[in-house]
Amino acid sequence: MYPPRVTLYEVGPRDGLQNEAAQLPVDDKVRLIEKLAAAGLSRIEIGSFVRPDWIPQLADTDKLASRLPPGPRYAALVPNRTGLDRAIAAGLREVAVFMSSSETHNQKNTNKSIAESLGHFAQIVPAAKKQGRFVRAYLSTVWGCPYEGKVDPMRALEISRELKKIGCDELSLGDTIGVGNPLQTRTILELFLKHLDPGYLALHLHDTNGTALANCLVGLEMGITIFDTSIGGMGGCPYAPGAAGNLATEDLASMLDDMEIATGVDLEKLFEAGELAQRLIGHKLTGRRLQAALGRRHPGEARAEAST
Amino acid sequence: MYPPRVTLYEVGPRDGLQNEAAQLPVDDKVRLIEKLAAAGLSRIEIGSFVRPDWIPQLADTDKLASRLPPGPRYAALVPNRTGLDRAIAAGLREVAVFMSSSETHNQKNTNKSIAESLGHFAQIVPAAKKQGRFVRAYLSTVWGCPYEGKVDPMRALEISRELKKIGCDELSLGDTIGVGNPLQTRTILELFLKHLDPGYLALHLHDTNGTALANCLVGLEMGITIFDTSIGGMGGCPYAPGAAGNLATEDLASMLDDMEIATGVDLEKLFEAGELAQRLIGHKLTGRRLQAALGRRHPGEARAEAST
Repeated sequence: MYPPRVTLYEVGPRDGLQNEAAQLPVDDKVRLIEKLAAAGLSRIEIGSFVRPDWIPQLADTDKLASRLPPGPRYAALVPNRTGLDRAIAAGLREVAVFMSSSETHNQKNTNKSIAESLGHFAQIVPAAKKQGRFVRAYLSTVWGCPYEGKVDPMRALEISRELKKIGCDELSLGDTIGVGNPLQTRTILELFLKHLDPGYLALHLHDTNGTALANCLVGLEMGITIFDTSIGGMGGCPYAPGAAGNLATEDLASMLDDMEIATGVDLEKLFEAGELAQRLIGHKLTGRRLQAALGRRHPGEARAEAST
Repeated sequence: MYPPRVTLYEVGPRDGLQNEAAQLPVDDKVRLIEKLAAAGLSRIEIGSFVRPDWIPQLADTDKLASRLPPGPRYAALVPNRTGLDRAIAAGLREVAVFMSSSETHNQKNTNKSIAESLGHFAQIVPAAKKQGRFVRAYLSTVWGCPYEGKVDPMRALEISRELKKIGCDELSLGDTIGVGNPLQTRTILELFLKHLDPGYLALHLHDTNGTALANCLVGLEMGITIFDTSIGGMGGCPYAPGAAGNLATEDLASMLDDMEIATGVDLEKLFEAGELAQRLIGHKLTGRRLQAALGRRHPGEARAEAST
């Protein structure tokens, strides 16, 4: 009833760093990505080709792209034709376009209406395909919008079908603010899977409320096999309102390993990557398994067992 | 596919406090329990009638029992006949016996072999029933034992059927160290539900690895309607090895509320109880929703939204 194999799409170097105050030098990003690749992650999103002043943390994506270790397929966000050209020049095999399923979030995040975003993608996605690039599309706020509240899944589905028609190879559905619950996830996926293949969909679930793994489980039950995660949970502090709260790669990888679902990831090496991420970022990351693993390596805080 | 209604069995004043360093005075426990009752929790475990020197945090359970607000059904652990007599004298309507499904944990936790525990319960459970008490049984380490590792679900089932035969009214299956995964939960429940009614079973899932909600979800899918939780996640720091890591009452209550599953609990009042618990314990509790709620009440740490 669960798929035998799952792909983890690592967003730490992009979605994670984008939401951290720390600005890592390229050298540190390379070190982190080397660790992620060594842990067996096969897809890694390294940054964003937006205007450098928009997201200073990711302003060095061109430089970073020239120093990536072989192995994984690397991706970056491209907001427009200029970004796409930079991604292609940088030699990335995958690019990602992004938009939201709620008008207000799309406007604030991309400065476009939903119709404008779709019109825009109809230009750049075929251009990316012509260059042999794999094109991922992000559709944000499907589970809820910080400005509009609930989002109509029918509207999100319409946009999704349009994105497929335009030529996107994969669609990552985002619970951008981590408000999703398992019943809602089931409802959304039941609707989407009437019209789209499960292999076409990825889930990008934030863990603000601690429900990301439960939502992933529903996805697994319904045949989803691609999940976006961030090393250490980088990019989100669940204890701050409005925080991104990325699902930690080790938390999902470990649960899948426990469930005998293959990911190709070496957990011990993943914890090493998480430990490095925490050191580079300079504050405790939120991943539970990472903190437990660090506790095992640095004992002394050990406590008594509970009795029931 | 999910049950319409779920009962939360609050273990904070017992399992929570038992695993916290702080020793609360009776007055503080009364205040906390008043808040829990006001939030609509219908079952609350207040302490343990073990020898006072065993668990100093719970040494005042007799005193506490005389000062409980009306409404909820209150319970306490009883390890033996003396404990049962104390519980009955204190007027508690429910008592709980406890044992483990692994020999080593049972020996360390109760000083008895599994056979001795069962023999012992065969004496005290009928005595409790004769006094009109509702008898809950805890079976610990079903998902894994800190000393023995994996536990054979068939062995756990045998013990469970014995506990039913002895006259226990309810059985709470414990993932004592929080190592359970959803596949395992499904396997265990599929086996148990061949022989026991879903209404007879409660799940006592610790959240050490952040998987408790995903495991609860499997329980819900399989018709389980009683879940043990601890206010604020009291009793477990997920960042310490071997920590209890109780599932936070607000985390499950909120997810159920989002899923339109009734619990009878007022979430805002529950957060008030959690806020009090945190103040009394004196350190940040682990519940994610509690911390988010406290963040909303005390903004200033607010951060930007993520973009995908």
